[in-house]
Amino acid sequence: MTIKAAVVGASGYTGEELFRLLVGHPKVEIAGAHDIRNVGKAVSEIHPNLKGILDLKITEPDYSKLGEEVDVVFVATPHKVAMKFVPKLLEGRAKIIDLSADYRFDDVKVYEKYYAKHESPKVRGVYGLPELHREDIKRARFIANPGCFPTAAILSLAPLVKSQLISLEHIIIDAKTGTSGAGVTLTEATHHSMAGANIRAYAATTHRHAPEIDQELTKLAGRKVKGNFTPHLIPVVRGILSTSHVFMKRFANRGELLDLYREFYVHEPFVRVRDGLPEVNYVVGSNYCDIGLELDQEGKRLVVVSAIDNLTKGASGQAVQNMNLMSGFDETEGLRSPAMRP
Amino acid sequence: MTIKAAVVGASGYTGEELFRLLVGHPKVEIAGAHDIRNVGKAVSEIHPNLKGILDLKITEPDYSKLGEEVDVVFVATPHKVAMKFVPKLLEGRAKIIDLSADYRFDDVKVYEKYYAKHESPKVRGVYGLPELHREDIKRARFIANPGCFPTAAILSLAPLVKSQLISLEHIIIDAKTGTSGAGVTLTEATHHSMAGANIRAYAATTHRHAPEIDQELTKLAGRKVKGNFTPHLIPVVRGILSTSHVFMKRFANRGELLDLYREFYVHEPFVRVRDGLPEVNYVVGSNYCDIGLELDQEGKRLVVVSAIDNLTKGASGQAVQNMNLMSGFDETEGLRSPAMRP
Amino acid sequence: MTIKAAVVGASGYTGEELFRLLVGHPKVEIAGAHDIRNVGKAVSEIHPNLKGILDLKITEPDYSKLGEEVDVVFVATPHKVAMKFVPKLLEGRAKIIDLSADYRFDDVKVYEKYYAKHESPKVRGVYGLPELHREDIKRARFIANPGCFPTAAILSLAPLVKSQLISLEHIIIDAKTGTSGAGVTLTEATHHSMAGANIRAYAATTHRHAPEIDQELTKLAGRKVKGNFTPHLIPVVRGILSTSHVFMKRFANRGELLDLYREFYVHEPFVRVRDGLPEVNYVVGSNYCDIGLELDQEGKRLVVVSAIDNLTKGASGQAVQNMNLMSGFDETEGLRSPAMRP
Amino acid sequence: MTIKAAVVGASGYTGEELFRLLVGHPKVEIAGAHDIRNVGKAVSEIHPNLKGILDLKITEPDYSKLGEEVDVVFVATPHKVAMKFVPKLLEGRAKIIDLSADYRFDDVKVYEKYYAKHESPKVRGVYGLPELHREDIKRARFIANPGCFPTAAILSLAPLVKSQLISLEHIIIDAKTGTSGAGVTLTEATHHSMAGANIRAYAATTHRHAPEIDQELTKLAGRKVKGNFTPHLIPVVRGILSTSHVFMKRFANRGELLDLYREFYVHEPFVRVRDGLPEVNYVVGSNYCDIGLELDQEGKRLVVVSAIDNLTKGASGQAVQNMNLMSGFDETEGLRSPAMRP
Repeated sequence: MTIKAAVVGASGYTGEELFRLLVGHPKVEIAGAHDIRNVGKAVSEIHPNLKGILDLKITEPDYSKLGEEVDVVFVATPHKVAMKFVPKLLEGRAKIIDLSADYRFDDVKVYEKYYAKHESPKVRGVYGLPELHREDIKRARFIANPGCFPTAAILSLAPLVKSQLISLEHIIIDAKTGTSGAGVTLTEATHHSMAGANIRAYAATTHRHAPEIDQELTKLAGRKVKGNFTPHLIPVVRGILSTSHVFMKRFANRGELLDLYREFYVHEPFVRVRDGLPEVNYVVGSNYCDIGLELDQEGKRLVVVSAIDNLTKGASGQAVQNMNLMSGFDETEGLRSPAMRP
Repeated sequence: MTIKAAVVGASGYTGEELFRLLVGHPKVEIAGAHDIRNVGKAVSEIHPNLKGILDLKITEPDYSKLGEEVDVVFVATPHKVAMKFVPKLLEGRAKIIDLSADYRFDDVKVYEKYYAKHESPKVRGVYGLPELHREDIKRARFIANPGCFPTAAILSLAPLVKSQLISLEHIIIDAKTGTSGAGVTLTEATHHSMAGANIRAYAATTHRHAPEIDQELTKLAGRKVKGNFTPHLIPVVRGILSTSHVFMKRFANRGELLDLYREFYVHEPFVRVRDGLPEVNYVVGSNYCDIGLELDQEGKRLVVVSAIDNLTKGASGQAVQNMNLMSGFDETEGLRSPAMRP
Repeated sequence: MTIKAAVVGASGYTGEELFRLLVGHPKVEIAGAHDIRNVGKAVSEIHPNLKGILDLKITEPDYSKLGEEVDVVFVATPHKVAMKFVPKLLEGRAKIIDLSADYRFDDVKVYEKYYAKHESPKVRGVYGLPELHREDIKRARFIANPGCFPTAAILSLAPLVKSQLISLEHIIIDAKTGTSGAGVTLTEATHHSMAGANIRAYAATTHRHAPEIDQELTKLAGRKVKGNFTPHLIPVVRGILSTSHVFMKRFANRGELLDLYREFYVHEPFVRVRDGLPEVNYVVGSNYCDIGLELDQEGKRLVVVSAIDNLTKGASGQAVQNMNLMSGFDETEGLRSPAMRP
Repeated sequence: MTIKAAVVGASGYTGEELFRLLVGHPKVEIAGAHDIRNVGKAVSEIHPNLKGILDLKITEPDYSKLGEEVDVVFVATPHKVAMKFVPKLLEGRAKIIDLSADYRFDDVKVYEKYYAKHESPKVRGVYGLPELHREDIKRARFIANPGCFPTAAILSLAPLVKSQLISLEHIIIDAKTGTSGAGVTLTEATHHSMAGANIRAYAATTHRHAPEIDQELTKLAGRKVKGNFTPHLIPVVRGILSTSHVFMKRFANRGELLDLYREFYVHEPFVRVRDGLPEVNYVVGSNYCDIGLELDQEGKRLVVVSAIDNLTKGASGQAVQNMNLMSGFDETEGLRSPAMRP
């Protein structure tokens, strides 16, 4: 059985990554590539890596029909755009996976504080992190696909926060990302002359991925938790390394902590708990989230490091994983490629 | 039908790339990972991107048995090493694909000038560039897989050299490569502090890929041709951009030249003749060779640019392509992934 | 004695580099930083490396006064802008050094073919390449500072073209540049996600630096010469490596060729003829142009490689060198810093 | 008055950086370049950026004479090497500045835990961080020049730790460094193919710069403080960004905190407290340490970011600053160059 999928937001990087993954997915036919930019051009004209592979023309989306014509719609438009048309899409029969932040928050006020006034505040998606919400995702019609930093951060902290082995008052998440996370929009910070030989922190206490992390950690702990998230821009194109620094509340040695993680993720196809610390090039181009940890000699401070590809497990790969779950496919279908290393 | 494949030289970058490609190949079982280094370790311990995907143990190769136990052996050892054991391997029944330079030269004296005294000078392989030697490859038992620079250079010049539209006395090939082409061996030139913010030419008139290019261009022209090859090291990990500068002997406009290329490569699954000039990120991670050209206003100088991934079409991907041809599989099996971009 | 200097175009990269050099120049007082952007801001607000070093406010230029108020004006505005106000500036007493292309061409028709209709076609500058035009520069009031690629290319070919040892019909100049050469303007090609792990050729036969190279090579040869120039964009921020491929007309061995270069540049403070090939990190941050060469075994093809920092010897450093010459200072004043390596 | 300086360890990166700085220092004559490697070669042969600038021959050090022949000796050898000969050097009259870790620790047991058995445990240096120990440095004959990470970390935390405004039990220092910090020794982690498109944490709780940070923070606080330091390797050649995450013990708003820093560093020529967060390219190539901070909305977590060039303020620039202080020169002599940006 094959399903029909459409991508809205065909011109961006998460759109490009969706196409890269879906052209190799044995159960998906790419039925539509939509955007308000580049209408009439072939997908492969915008994304020249796809020449001869996906030469489909980009058309303007017709939201009133799209939900009827295909089985799944990936929404890969910028934040604040999806909310304008998702309600219309939901009138159709298609399953929807929104890669933007528009429907990720349980509390719409949080969204409005960090993004903008919400235009469809009554609608909400299932938070599409399979490792925490798999059963809900399977039953869902509408998925709010997680942000890239939250994916890396939440997965690296979930076992600790759930077990409450650590001080929940002193969690630090110091993340490092490649530049593709900033998308196709030209900015001074991602101009090569400014980014190519530079390291910078940004939105050090105010990044809009922080409340998303806090929301999920809070659910895990059963009480309010703050992740204290700070991102950095690094001169690689792809990849996130997320370093969580936490303080132990109860004693546990490194072996016990590794066992905790291994047990927590024992059935997860895309989380690899490692003996050592993961590096970005263990995962770039793949849907894996690799996790490792190191405890200091006094057994007090624990460092947990996770690595993902921001465009794959951090966006489009996770979206395909969610599609697989919603469609009853093997969860790893189309996503088994190992990382490209070196 | 599934065939069994073994890799000799499991620890290097072309070995790693073979594994990356073969784990996704539906008709291949990876039956052996061999090396004299890292014996007893899992492949995934050396190549951590393969954790959970290929945890096979690395064993020392037994050349007297290996040729009997598997259907195809990929030889991914350094130059000057393959020649020590390929004759032994050929006593078995397996097909052999050697990624080193040891058997690429029709004239063993050329090899000996650029590499070392040959230890099995009577043996020679079929030069494994499918676009020029497909029928020979299909019938071959032993393939000498081309070098990375020669693949990019020969494919970019073949239609011109064959048609003799250009002055064969004034060909210039100015190539730019990422650092993975230099392999895993640590060198000052590939030490990040020396390579990471640098551009350098090396072996400007003496690179050992030059005679390989000359050999194939000479065959195409039917008379002695010199490619005048100069490589440069560029701070990317993967990718080759090869810029050929040639002078027209007979007049042709750009459209006619593009037609010449399109006709020459009309049946080729992995050569894409483009309207514009290709870039390295059109092909990195894929088996494509993209080609474009630009003619100066006077119609005198022609610039032909080709782009490949040095580890894929320039090495392991081409080796798998050769395996497919030798095994009667679809030539593109396991090689259809588009490039990773951005 | 100290002179007063002003910079028009204070916000760009060549402006920034002028400030970096001039703050350390013992005979220059920076009397004005002018721009139509960022008016009212401190130079150090736009160029944060200059905090506490140059906190001067940026003001709008008043061209009718500027030429009277200072001794030298550096024009660091984009191409097509300088021509609008240079004639006005020249009414004052100040010496003018224009870093744009607007006055580099002896033949205004060449300018108009590659840039735009010239608004002050009667005015022309002395081409500010000290190694070729030192005496003219010393006497000049108005300098057209050379382009970055032409500086690297002309210096690498001048001895050969002048001596006519090579075939003037088959010169190839294949240049590689870092991204800062493209300036502060945001473009897709210099967006980090597109440039950071990429190599690309651009304007392969039509780059507007080509006619500038041709003009100077033609003067050196005494007859029309075409440089056949092709540039490439490389993921470094600074630096140009220019590789000239030429064919010998008369026989000369490598030692004789090195002697030719050493003699030609014997009195030059900023040209270093090297035994081996130069690399970009030999010169980045400095005003040097390093040159090396390699002759093939047959003595037919010669490869000459030159390396410069595109913002220093390729722009602002050369402008300061010209200022020194015009002002009767030691030519190396303020320019003696070695490259930053690693 | 000019002093004579010698460098022991002329072949390494800190040696190279010392030469880069000292050739422009108006009061220093470079009287000797010593090493046990590369003896007989010119400095400029090993460091080609110095061709024509410092062509002095490298000679083997004679420690019994060196201390008599020059006024200051910079020891730029690896850790565990300096301790073998510093006592001998100290028998002479020269001032000694050791860039290695061998004499940085007040308690030799700490050194022995992290490095090796100390061969001259009775000797100790003044910890050469001018911002904390200026008066001691001025009077010292022997300086232990700080490590690169400690310089960035200690300067970013000193005002907070001294004032005890923060919880001293929950300090996190998450640092990011370029690859030149690892020196000239070839390693897999700094091989371009492994480092060029990668991000990795290393020695996450056990780095040997941690006890150095702890020693100085402890002195500032007057009681035992742990910095909880974790370094990361980033694909830039130069630069450290150090991000300190701390929790406020007493309330202070951002303005008050900035005032605290500005007052603390009011007389410091090389510390710039910024309104925003510093980036690595604000300081690369210069001796500055830039600091900025951001307080979260609740006023609980404070992020302090500092940026230095690991080879300049983090090593050789600081060594020259110490030499200036010890010699009665202006502290900024030879160190006034702004960062190279872009």
